[in-house]
Amino acid sequence: MIQKLFTLGPVEMYEYTRERPSGQLPYFRTEEFSGINNECAERLRRLSGAPADAHVYLLTCSGTGAMEAVVGGCFGADDRLLVIDGGGFGHRFAELAGHHGIPYETVSLMFNETLTPDMLGPAASAGGFTGLLVNLHETIMGQLYDKDLLAAFCREHDLYFVGDAIGSFLADPLDFEKDGMDAIIISSQKALALPPGLAAVILSDRMYKKIMVQDIKPFSLYFDFRDAEANAVRGQTPFTPAVGTILALRERLERLEAEGGAEAAVSRTKALAEDFRARIGGLIEQGRIALPAHPLSNACTPLVFPEGGAGKVWQMLSQEHGVWLNPNGGALADTLLRVGHLGALTTEDNAMLAGLLSDIL
Amino acid sequence: MIQKLFTLGPVEMYEYTRERPSGQLPYFRTEEFSGINNECAERLRRLSGAPADAHVYLLTCSGTGAMEAVVGGCFGADDRLLVIDGGGFGHRFAELAGHHGIPYETVSLMFNETLTPDMLGPAASAGGFTGLLVNLHETIMGQLYDKDLLAAFCREHDLYFVGDAIGSFLADPLDFEKDGMDAIIISSQKALALPPGLAAVILSDRMYKKIMVQDIKPFSLYFDFRDAEANAVRGQTPFTPAVGTILALRERLERLEAEGGAEAAVSRTKALAEDFRARIGGLIEQGRIALPAHPLSNACTPLVFPEGGAGKVWQMLSQEHGVWLNPNGGALADTLLRVGHLGALTTEDNAMLAGLLSDIL
Repeated sequence: MIQKLFTLGPVEMYEYTRERPSGQLPYFRTEEFSGINNECAERLRRLSGAPADAHVYLLTCSGTGAMEAVVGGCFGADDRLLVIDGGGFGHRFAELAGHHGIPYETVSLMFNETLTPDMLGPAASAGGFTGLLVNLHETIMGQLYDKDLLAAFCREHDLYFVGDAIGSFLADPLDFEKDGMDAIIISSQKALALPPGLAAVILSDRMYKKIMVQDIKPFSLYFDFRDAEANAVRGQTPFTPAVGTILALRERLERLEAEGGAEAAVSRTKALAEDFRARIGGLIEQGRIALPAHPLSNACTPLVFPEGGAGKVWQMLSQEHGVWLNPNGGALADTLLRVGHLGALTTEDNAMLAGLLSDIL
Repeated sequence: MIQKLFTLGPVEMYEYTRERPSGQLPYFRTEEFSGINNECAERLRRLSGAPADAHVYLLTCSGTGAMEAVVGGCFGADDRLLVIDGGGFGHRFAELAGHHGIPYETVSLMFNETLTPDMLGPAASAGGFTGLLVNLHETIMGQLYDKDLLAAFCREHDLYFVGDAIGSFLADPLDFEKDGMDAIIISSQKALALPPGLAAVILSDRMYKKIMVQDIKPFSLYFDFRDAEANAVRGQTPFTPAVGTILALRERLERLEAEGGAEAAVSRTKALAEDFRARIGGLIEQGRIALPAHPLSNACTPLVFPEGGAGKVWQMLSQEHGVWLNPNGGALADTLLRVGHLGALTTEDNAMLAGLLSDIL
């Protein structure tokens, strides 16, 4: 039985990052490894469209650790955050703000509900916000938010613009500088197609200065951006990093840039998503599957089962065929599955999955 | 040129954990992966001599993240900690206590100074301590503290006994239950010889209950033991873990138990350390190298260069021979190097290193 991951992390890895050529890892407190860290930072900066003065930090943790590092490390009780909460990860942002005593309000969206300008109206009228937190692609629901709308809103109301790009980096267009972003969060196991356990945070220089000027006390020494900065200037991390994953990251980023950079990566993911969506056109026409009403990321196709049965389909695909989709929990457990388009997947994989779905339904 | 790591993490990895057989990682929110997590927890419990009701948490972070999780997650302003500070990692424990507003005092030791019962006298007289933090092996100085002394002290004065076992697990004797320990911290890149980025914390049940009874507010949602516990009971972690490293951990722990468990692992490391120390006996007799006066861990042989020149030796070994030792910073930079005995090293590697040292000196 094959094992094929259509999940949203881990994803299918590329051959060139699956194994370390020599098998052994290097000692890392060296100039050579500083060079590797710096190269990763520079390539991440370019791939996200961040300016030369943006600060890039590699953090050894899951994506949530990096989300917390940003929320708790960049904001304080004097801030007021607007959180776009349209699913599990938006909810996590809200929880993190609450946990760290940062005043916040949410714009809450249901499944199928699209983020529109009028939803931001009350916040605009109320005023007094200092930052906005959004999961650019809310992977739990598969909604890609209107980044231009949010960028314009942040610019107009002078908010720090924080984007969790974990589920959208290299899958959907992102331009840190043009969009006036102040922080993005990236994780290794999504479009970077590396093992989980490494995250990156990119901060605008004005966000870094905010931390200093407002003297935001670090909630954790492990996630202290001041310490990260003091080490980053010499190409190092404060603590032993995920050395193996960083080596694979360097390799992956080099290939990504050689293959045309972020724009080309987004195009490839878009083509793969469109290919899959075309292949399930028949099932959609027959009403066996529906797509959500909200805008979709290229990273993921959420499959709505109008009459339920998602759990059974997931079970059959994984147990009988070794094909893994992302299940949902809670109220959507039996009506929603998510198909990822990240990592080393091909149109042949899409054809297989569409065929299996057709057989099962 | 060969590349041979005598550093204390990363270390030389074993062939069977260097590469994932299939190359791809599995989706992890499954019963099968819960089984793998549970197996790792059970094997870590056995290898550390922890009782069946001890709580084992796998954390995706560096060792310092796990140290902070324990200090900030188990203690609060009502506690008073005694910190054995005999080097960089003891100092880190003190910093962490200070950062989280936990009252503490230190027992400070210089290089070459052995921890003795009378050093604990003032703390015993003062009383009022609720916990003791110690790096069982202070890897920065290479001192192995007298665990029996500390265990007896904690028992006598009813202190929670916290041991950073990062540098001593599987290298020096450890018996969680017999020593009345309440928390130990383990990291993947030391004797486990895995890539860095995964840590484990084992808490006694009375330590877990302390968190609940005193209602210690988690300083971080990423490092929240309540959330870790709620997930661990179903064999899962709150956030996407370092899936690849956990697979390698399972493999490594299985082999370790098959090869005789902790006792056998400690014996092998001890034999390797003794072999190396015997091989440099001539250099010691000639006064070119000295060993510290304090007790040594089997994990590490600190090399003292009475007349300086440690930096130059490090440079020659690494640049001309691809052989990596741990350098020291600060005041000891030119007089101390550390040779690790962890991971896939052999007596042949020892012979090579002793030979090179002889050539250079």
